[in-house]
Amino acid sequence: MPLSEFELIDRFFRDCGARRTDVRLGVGDDAAVLECPTDRQLVAATDSIVEGVHFPAGSSPESIGHRALAVNLSDLAAMGAEPAWALLALTMSRADEQWLREFSGGLCALAREHGVALVGGDTTSGPLSVTVHVLGFVERATALTRSGGSAGDAIYVSGTPGDAAAGLALAQGRLTVEDGADAAQLSRRFLFPTPRIALGRQLRAHASACIDVSDGLLGDAGKLAAASGCGVALTFDELPLSPALTRAVGGERARMLALTGGDDYELLFSVHPDRIAALHGALPPEAWGYRRIGSLRAAPGAAVVRDGSVIDFSHYGFDHFA
Amino acid sequence: MPLSEFELIDRFFRDCGARRTDVRLGVGDDAAVLECPTDRQLVAATDSIVEGVHFPAGSSPESIGHRALAVNLSDLAAMGAEPAWALLALTMSRADEQWLREFSGGLCALAREHGVALVGGDTTSGPLSVTVHVLGFVERATALTRSGGSAGDAIYVSGTPGDAAAGLALAQGRLTVEDGADAAQLSRRFLFPTPRIALGRQLRAHASACIDVSDGLLGDAGKLAAASGCGVALTFDELPLSPALTRAVGGERARMLALTGGDDYELLFSVHPDRIAALHGALPPEAWGYRRIGSLRAAPGAAVVRDGSVIDFSHYGFDHFA
Repeated sequence: MPLSEFELIDRFFRDCGARRTDVRLGVGDDAAVLECPTDRQLVAATDSIVEGVHFPAGSSPESIGHRALAVNLSDLAAMGAEPAWALLALTMSRADEQWLREFSGGLCALAREHGVALVGGDTTSGPLSVTVHVLGFVERATALTRSGGSAGDAIYVSGTPGDAAAGLALAQGRLTVEDGADAAQLSRRFLFPTPRIALGRQLRAHASACIDVSDGLLGDAGKLAAASGCGVALTFDELPLSPALTRAVGGERARMLALTGGDDYELLFSVHPDRIAALHGALPPEAWGYRRIGSLRAAPGAAVVRDGSVIDFSHYGFDHFA
Repeated sequence: MPLSEFELIDRFFRDCGARRTDVRLGVGDDAAVLECPTDRQLVAATDSIVEGVHFPAGSSPESIGHRALAVNLSDLAAMGAEPAWALLALTMSRADEQWLREFSGGLCALAREHGVALVGGDTTSGPLSVTVHVLGFVERATALTRSGGSAGDAIYVSGTPGDAAAGLALAQGRLTVEDGADAAQLSRRFLFPTPRIALGRQLRAHASACIDVSDGLLGDAGKLAAASGCGVALTFDELPLSPALTRAVGGERARMLALTGGDDYELLFSVHPDRIAALHGALPPEAWGYRRIGSLRAAPGAAVVRDGSVIDFSHYGFDHFA
């Protein structure tokens, strides 16, 4: 590498993100020393993104930096936690200054936006992959989990799932979208996902269970349901779709992408029937951008109901654009 | 992958390491929820090991699991911290059950030994690399850093540096050692490094600065010195060498390996002259396995002194076995 690891860290990652008074020792020593608030619990998550697996080779470095942090912040959002600190493990084949400048620009901008300080990390040579570790806080015994739901709870999702899957297909050349504004919007939903931190914080008062939608809405709804000891039924015609996605691929395929596409980083959450009115009052669905799409039920598994019938997903393969 | 990520995590990484009552929610949700002690500071580090960079392809999975955690625990040791929790980001080309069993065996055994609970992680497909994130605690304002040293402080190192570099060379077929017991000992020092947690904890009362030796003794001594605003002089003939290394490569090359080899995961630390007697009294060097090898000095840089002359390292290339 033309830049030593030491110079590289110093140039691009020192003072990355927010300045926080609870960082006693940040980037540059063997480890970070941090001051935890005494009245809250620590919430910790880690997620990796790998070139050729989670993003195509040649992706914008700014997007890679943004996504590497965003997918981790999304995990904190799903717990109702407030993010505080991040560590970065960056593996890359060579230290290209321009690439690093754009990568750190994307990561550090999102960190600042959420009040997160980058406090440490590691850079190594190897195939491009980025692992971020995030730490945050939640008021004692208020963390949202996957396991708190019950049969009868309403199921909601934020945002417009499916957009990111179309954005990835665009980046991979598997999808063409004629309208430039629609294409840009869908691409952006893949390249720059928005972690729903503010919504997650509010949901601590309303939701019985929560999960972030990263592997596809249907599968992740099934995980929440299984952790809660029940099943889930989603209503095909209630899935929230963006006009851009519907125009780009049609309503039928848009719903399939919304159910199985992945990379959305939206929140899927359950609410007890007694709490629905309070939820809608405190967090108006249109203002907060979420929608009811189904219910938890006693029967196990994850089903999609359309016109009163359950859709069988065994006919649908992995590649939605084949 | 024949095993889903969900099954894989469940089978090999749930209940990995120590059981700790401060883990409110461990592996299996979007993030872990943890209880920090109110009277201590949090210490956080992350390090990756990549196949073909940090270990040869085909290395023992047990060793890879051990090393991935050990290199991180070594960072906590250098801060004087007590380890508590770890998260694992594992990228591998396919989920081979036998490989995973041995890998988790190596990682979880070391975690148990140090009272560490594995509380979360992420598995993805891609070229083999392992990123671990460790969290621990240190009594407020007692963390060791790289920057606390002063000119005149004595410099010490634990263990017998150079062994691991010879062990790596053995694994790569760049070195042959006739004596089977010596070869096994050197290999083991590379494959199963020992994080010096207990020594680091004790050094909080004695050392002015500390760093873990991962990239080579001389370079890491230079980093500690630079962070402390001074330079360092090491004495060639005082380097602690294992009999196995000396027998395997001879005394001259053994010292070169000790200075520049890397992968030792020993502690290098500085002690103010007024504190030396107390250090030796509280932690007898032979019992604790450390040795004085030089001093910090005002002149910047890292020098090695032999018979009163400074050795010039510019003649020595990267490959010690060429």
